Amino acid sequence: MLVAILPGDGIGPEVTAQARRVLDALAVPGMTYESALVGGAAYHATGHPLPPETLDLAKRADAILFGAVGDPTCDSLERALRPEQAILGLRKELTLFSNLRPAKMFPELADDSTLRREIAEAIDLLIVRELNGDVYFGEKGMRRTADGLREGYDIMSYNEAEVRRIAHSAFKAAQARRGKLCSVDKANVLETSQLWRDVVIEVAADYPDVALSHMYVDNAAMQLVRNPGQFDVIVTGNLFGDILSDQASMCVGSIGMLASASLDANGKGLYEPIHGSAPDIAGQSKANPLATILSAAMMLRFSLGQAEAADRIEAAVAKALAGGARTADLGGSLSTSAMGDAVLAAL
Amino acid sequence: MLVAILPGDGIGPEVTAQARRVLDALAVPGMTYESALVGGAAYHATGHPLPPETLDLAKRADAILFGAVGDPTCDSLERALRPEQAILGLRKELTLFSNLRPAKMFPELADDSTLRREIAEAIDLLIVRELNGDVYFGEKGMRRTADGLREGYDIMSYNEAEVRRIAHSAFKAAQARRGKLCSVDKANVLETSQLWRDVVIEVAADYPDVALSHMYVDNAAMQLVRNPGQFDVIVTGNLFGDILSDQASMCVGSIGMLASASLDANGKGLYEPIHGSAPDIAGQSKANPLATILSAAMMLRFSLGQAEAADRIEAAVAKALAGGARTADLGGSLSTSAMGDAVLAAL
Ligand SMILES: CC(C)[C@H](C(=O)O)[C@@H](O)C(=O)O
Ligand SMILES: CC(C)[C@H](C(=O)O)[C@@H](O)C(=O)O
Repeated sequence: MLVAILPGDGIGPEVTAQARRVLDALAVPGMTYESALVGGAAYHATGHPLPPETLDLAKRADAILFGAVGDPTCDSLERALRPEQAILGLRKELTLFSNLRPAKMFPELADDSTLRREIAEAIDLLIVRELNGDVYFGEKGMRRTADGLREGYDIMSYNEAEVRRIAHSAFKAAQARRGKLCSVDKANVLETSQLWRDVVIEVAADYPDVALSHMYVDNAAMQLVRNPGQFDVIVTGNLFGDILSDQASMCVGSIGMLASASLDANGKGLYEPIHGSAPDIAGQSKANPLATILSAAMMLRFSLGQAEAADRIEAAVAKALAGGARTADLGGSLSTSAMGDAVLAAL
Repeated sequence: MLVAILPGDGIGPEVTAQARRVLDALAVPGMTYESALVGGAAYHATGHPLPPETLDLAKRADAILFGAVGDPTCDSLERALRPEQAILGLRKELTLFSNLRPAKMFPELADDSTLRREIAEAIDLLIVRELNGDVYFGEKGMRRTADGLREGYDIMSYNEAEVRRIAHSAFKAAQARRGKLCSVDKANVLETSQLWRDVVIEVAADYPDVALSHMYVDNAAMQLVRNPGQFDVIVTGNLFGDILSDQASMCVGSIGMLASASLDANGKGLYEPIHGSAPDIAGQSKANPLATILSAAMMLRFSLGQAEAADRIEAAVAKALAGGARTADLGGSLSTSAMGDAVLAAL
């Protein structure tokens, strides 16, 4: 089994290095690793954020462990050369359409959320975000209006096949959890959302055991603050999923804790922390590597058939936290590698 | 001075009735009122959510006090006939492009937020939301893909003139507050956002006394949970503003408390609570009328030159709260009109 490791930019290399140490310590038989450049790091070295060798490795691999992309020194490049195009390109080229972003409080961190303890403790939700469509991938560009004004535009759209496949992912996820699915859209304003809602309702007929509800995105952003414990699975489009999953992740304490999986139809996946490249703390060994370590656990479970190894990682993370291990984002002072040490010691 | 009162749907009539009582009690000389149907109520009576008489009244009036629109019995109507088209139509027809949504903790309600007290108490921000453009008003519809699949689409766009005028509103608002402006976009993915960011930076040259920063919308949703006290003024587009302002309003305790103003270039405005029509509690006299009463105060201040009357309303609301007046959303049991009574008594 080949795992591609794509560290990327900013704190990406620091956090993936710790995940790699944990994977090495598990010594799962038959696992091999190859690394490649991606994002700003790849642009600076090769002139492209997703060089052909990197895409090729990602295609050959059974699973991908991804750090983060984003590099302020690339802000003025044309869009096609910016770091973000690497992750967008991987998601699209590998048809990784189903992004799973679980948010659950680690009991050890109940005091880290800015939400009141009883509200934060009740959070146990999964955001299923569509990752191959929406305003992310429609035609976009700069043009001139009839009066000669500069205008930026982006076409938002979903077709029924795109909505259907993510809806099936979400209904299945809800079946495996508490049987509740909330579809989030803005159907009172957007035709894209109206199609979304219509198709989700059609797919619901195949899942009579799942309780489906619908919520407008503005209300969802509010409900995630008011009473996040009401949610089991949320399914939504690429743009709303981007916003709501970051919000939800902060509700459980630190975005430095949350892992994600981006899956294709066959269970091949890319695994990455929800946090970004955090250029402000890059290279200072301050970043929390747990989201990436937990992403490695998701990878073992979902793409590599190694549920037991995944359980071991998750237990070790919980044990390290219970033992008081804390990076700066969690109010502590451990360095990135010292947090890695703590997890290794707990393994 | 003519004030148009448009109660709308659901709890709209209940909450505007209380605001009207407060306005009557103030007896500002020269103020006259006219009411008209809007939203689902107007559709059911006339076949259109924004009948010509209503639009005409709104145009003639010096200011508009608006309740809420939204009616589930209209969900399957064609989009042009749905209640939401009334508020969107008013915003567009009257060129109400600048939506001001302040969020500040009432000290009396510090325990009502689901955020920890010290986090919630630090909130004092203003969201300036663009209201005439974005994916709300671009071409939209249903079409078929080349393979015959149903597809919904909506064009997102902003031109430089649209961004410039809202940027000026926001920079001015920041000057009148703490001098900090955060522009929220998704420039790493959207061309619309790139144009937005470019123009905001151009406009910044006119306001050297305002500290401008930029934030991606996913990060902003996270920061509003992590440390909302960091924000002074946030300026953003129509869609992101819709989401973030609902989120921010819940951070200060209850969406039942927050007022908003939607202004044109001359200070004429429409004033409405941020909350919606809440069909689930309509007609039960449970709704909190304070957001609408506070919207009436904003109206007196911004559009009618009656700052003193506005101050009196705001002081009365604070006094009523301090005296323990609470509707259900604030953990109490007062009816809508009993909350109105409490404000009147405090006037
Ligand atoms: C880096 C960016 C393009 C990306 C996104 O918007 O999808 C990120 O925010 C994420 O959520 O993975
Ligand atoms: C009712 C709806 C169209 C409206 C919007 O999305 O603008 C509402 O949510 C608001 O924020 O005023």
